[in-house]
Amino acid sequence: MRTGLRTGLGTGLRTQGPDRAAAPCLLTLCLGCLHVVALKPQLLTRLGGSSHSTDTPISYDTFYFDQRIDHFGFLEDGTFKQRYLVADEHWQRPGGPILFYTGNEGDITWFCNNTGFMWDVAEELGAMLDSKHLNYLSSEQALADFAVLIKHLKSSSPGAEQSPVIAVGGSYGGMLAAWFRMKYPNIVVGALAASAPIWQFPGMVPCGDFYRIVTQDFAKSGNACDANIRKSWKAINNVSSTASGLQWLSEEFSLCAPLKSSIDAVGFKSWLQETWVNLAMVDYPYPANFLQPLPRWPIQVVCKFLALDPSVSDYELLHGVAQAAKVYYNYTGSSPCLNTSQTATGSLGLLGWFYQACTEMVMPMCADGVHDMFEPQDWNLQAFSDECNAMFGVRPRADWAGTVYGGKDIASHSNIIFSNGGLDPWSAGGVTSNITDSLVSILIPDGAHHLDLRYRNDQDPPSVRAARALEVMYFREWIRQAKKTQPRCP
Amino acid sequence: MRTGLRTGLGTGLRTQGPDRAAAPCLLTLCLGCLHVVALKPQLLTRLGGSSHSTDTPISYDTFYFDQRIDHFGFLEDGTFKQRYLVADEHWQRPGGPILFYTGNEGDITWFCNNTGFMWDVAEELGAMLDSKHLNYLSSEQALADFAVLIKHLKSSSPGAEQSPVIAVGGSYGGMLAAWFRMKYPNIVVGALAASAPIWQFPGMVPCGDFYRIVTQDFAKSGNACDANIRKSWKAINNVSSTASGLQWLSEEFSLCAPLKSSIDAVGFKSWLQETWVNLAMVDYPYPANFLQPLPRWPIQVVCKFLALDPSVSDYELLHGVAQAAKVYYNYTGSSPCLNTSQTATGSLGLLGWFYQACTEMVMPMCADGVHDMFEPQDWNLQAFSDECNAMFGVRPRADWAGTVYGGKDIASHSNIIFSNGGLDPWSAGGVTSNITDSLVSILIPDGAHHLDLRYRNDQDPPSVRAARALEVMYFREWIRQAKKTQPRCP
Repeated sequence: MRTGLRTGLGTGLRTQGPDRAAAPCLLTLCLGCLHVVALKPQLLTRLGGSSHSTDTPISYDTFYFDQRIDHFGFLEDGTFKQRYLVADEHWQRPGGPILFYTGNEGDITWFCNNTGFMWDVAEELGAMLDSKHLNYLSSEQALADFAVLIKHLKSSSPGAEQSPVIAVGGSYGGMLAAWFRMKYPNIVVGALAASAPIWQFPGMVPCGDFYRIVTQDFAKSGNACDANIRKSWKAINNVSSTASGLQWLSEEFSLCAPLKSSIDAVGFKSWLQETWVNLAMVDYPYPANFLQPLPRWPIQVVCKFLALDPSVSDYELLHGVAQAAKVYYNYTGSSPCLNTSQTATGSLGLLGWFYQACTEMVMPMCADGVHDMFEPQDWNLQAFSDECNAMFGVRPRADWAGTVYGGKDIASHSNIIFSNGGLDPWSAGGVTSNITDSLVSILIPDGAHHLDLRYRNDQDPPSVRAARALEVMYFREWIRQAKKTQPRCP
Repeated sequence: MRTGLRTGLGTGLRTQGPDRAAAPCLLTLCLGCLHVVALKPQLLTRLGGSSHSTDTPISYDTFYFDQRIDHFGFLEDGTFKQRYLVADEHWQRPGGPILFYTGNEGDITWFCNNTGFMWDVAEELGAMLDSKHLNYLSSEQALADFAVLIKHLKSSSPGAEQSPVIAVGGSYGGMLAAWFRMKYPNIVVGALAASAPIWQFPGMVPCGDFYRIVTQDFAKSGNACDANIRKSWKAINNVSSTASGLQWLSEEFSLCAPLKSSIDAVGFKSWLQETWVNLAMVDYPYPANFLQPLPRWPIQVVCKFLALDPSVSDYELLHGVAQAAKVYYNYTGSSPCLNTSQTATGSLGLLGWFYQACTEMVMPMCADGVHDMFEPQDWNLQAFSDECNAMFGVRPRADWAGTVYGGKDIASHSNIIFSNGGLDPWSAGGVTSNITDSLVSILIPDGAHHLDLRYRNDQDPPSVRAARALEVMYFREWIRQAKKTQPRCP
């Protein structure tokens, strides 16, 4: 099933899916604010392992809210315990702003506060999920969860009643942040939607842009890095056509499960493709552990192994590819073998995103092998739909996201920042130019996937520092607007 | 069950519910426009009898669209045939505007066009409805129906692709029109929300304002009309305390089903209360047949029978009340008896509205007998909830409408006209002053329930003529804005 879905959506499912590790808040965002993180709604959850990359003490309180399973129907009257985290150490009551982090599809780590605090809370989709519960796993239910939770918080937290709330999120969480402002402007005064591909839907952007950007990232590292990856697919086909070649490949890549057939080689290529995509997403300017522990500018490191002469043999080329892949999968040297069934740290946790991709989050991707370094692959909605039907018994509604969230026609909304990294393939589906004075785009040319939401770092390029400063400026303006229009505190 | 709900919500359920007869479009609205009427979504329907008050020929085409039963979940993948009516006789292709009438909770009649056409299509809720289907009877599903239908129309009707769409609706349909613009500004460039009580929800307006306005309407007709109605409840209690009194009352009111007990008298008083409310809603300046066939300014006619001296006996007072009620129920003289199980023409058709009132459309009403002419009645959410639970197995979510549709905090939206009649009790829950330059209120002091949406009439007061002219002015402005921002036709 996994391979099938992988075939259907390319890496879309997987690369969007794993965006669940470090999604820290801006260090500079804390304007005497209350920070609230709403974890993944609708789903029974269990706490996974947590880790974070600094030794800053974590300070937050955990609460549970009886959230409705279904906001849009009344027959299902059940509730679930929605977990949320609150950090109010620096909150100025009454009326200090609330930063509300719109939880992603998986784990959340959220860093915020000048004095430094950091959350690294893993949250994974429980394997006990059945399709009845998945039915309530939708963006609309998530937004309704956020709205009901915030109203509850504001009415039950002394001093919060007049607090303006700002939604902050990255990746799918960034999409939710933007949509939350669009659909519930009564609840949040504005939203920071970081690396949010709200236009990665059918008919809105060219399906090939995503892989084109991945390819550009590798091309920038010079030495024919992209060209050699483009050549590698044929080389894999050639080598994997014999049993001895399959064995050689398996050994060269230190695969945990050796390749047995050319069918396995298809999955192997998908896994490699995803590896390059993930590297493009996490091509950060300093060592980080987002999807995997990696050195700074990991693509540059990877491409050192791919600086090969055009005349090299298939085996020499694939030796280089294997070395490159091991930068991603075994930078720490602690992996005994490479597991082609996953491309990011952490266990599973993708089922929920798969379901969403199979329902409303339909994100076409394609490659042509010319403008990108991948094997040509069409976007085939019907094939994708069939896979979804086999997997979940549902079929995607390709046009729904555009209808419900407006697609390109969102100019009547206000107070949303769309930030995008120039290195991030997801910027292909993002808003990368200003729509109006208050629907603004911030570009971070040296940024990968929501770099601006990460902890401040000495190696941050100037562009992300500037982006964060601008984001805070808009936050202040939204808060000022809100304070102006709301009644005075009694 | 009916009486129970009536007790719980006062006349709210009933008076909002029956708003399903004449809801004609402005005669002056037709700017070379395409007119689309979307009938009640989600529900299996049957065509009821149709009638209209003029002999203008009706010209429209009927179509059916395979609409999703559930937009917000994917397990229920079924569709129903959503019926919609299209009048394109005067439509200027390509790009001429589309007026989209957001169907009400029951029957729809829709009049539009300078040359005169009128629809009077009855649509009633089928008695075969089960709670599974009712689960999809919600405003959110209705808005999603509208959005999907309009996208379908625009993509499938040659010349419609660039057409700006304006939502028009009255009463509950007016609420839907306003909410449609709020939630789907990508689909409609603006909305006329006529007599739309979007604030008749818990905590937004005083629960007693509704009945206070009804009372004012009767007080305006002078001769202690309101005072005598206020006195009548006690008189009914007195008279109905004996078997002979019950018999006298039944005969005096020509009741189809004679009153047997003081319990029956409670229902009888509810029915009378609803009668006065309905008269306030349809106090039109010319003979009309909205809820019942009535003379012009029917409250003045009714009050002639209530111009009684304070010293009259209970029997004399109730004789006057009976005569007054017969103005409403038997103006044509064709009713052999009065049926206390209904207060408006047409058969049933209220079940759907009851369900909505029991789920998200929770509209508190109360009376004190001092500022209004009714028996004191508190708003009791718990009792109401218990009745809903007994009737449908659901409980209302009192705060949900305010959360999802913004309550008083809607200033960030745009391009909505809220028109309200000064005689209309529903104006108590309406937007009666400007919120911003593009969220505007139009008051029609001499208007009852969405008089502005009715056919132009020689006896129209100047205020409704002015309102219509202003509405058209805003329509033109929205269309101008839309044409300015959209790409040129290829």
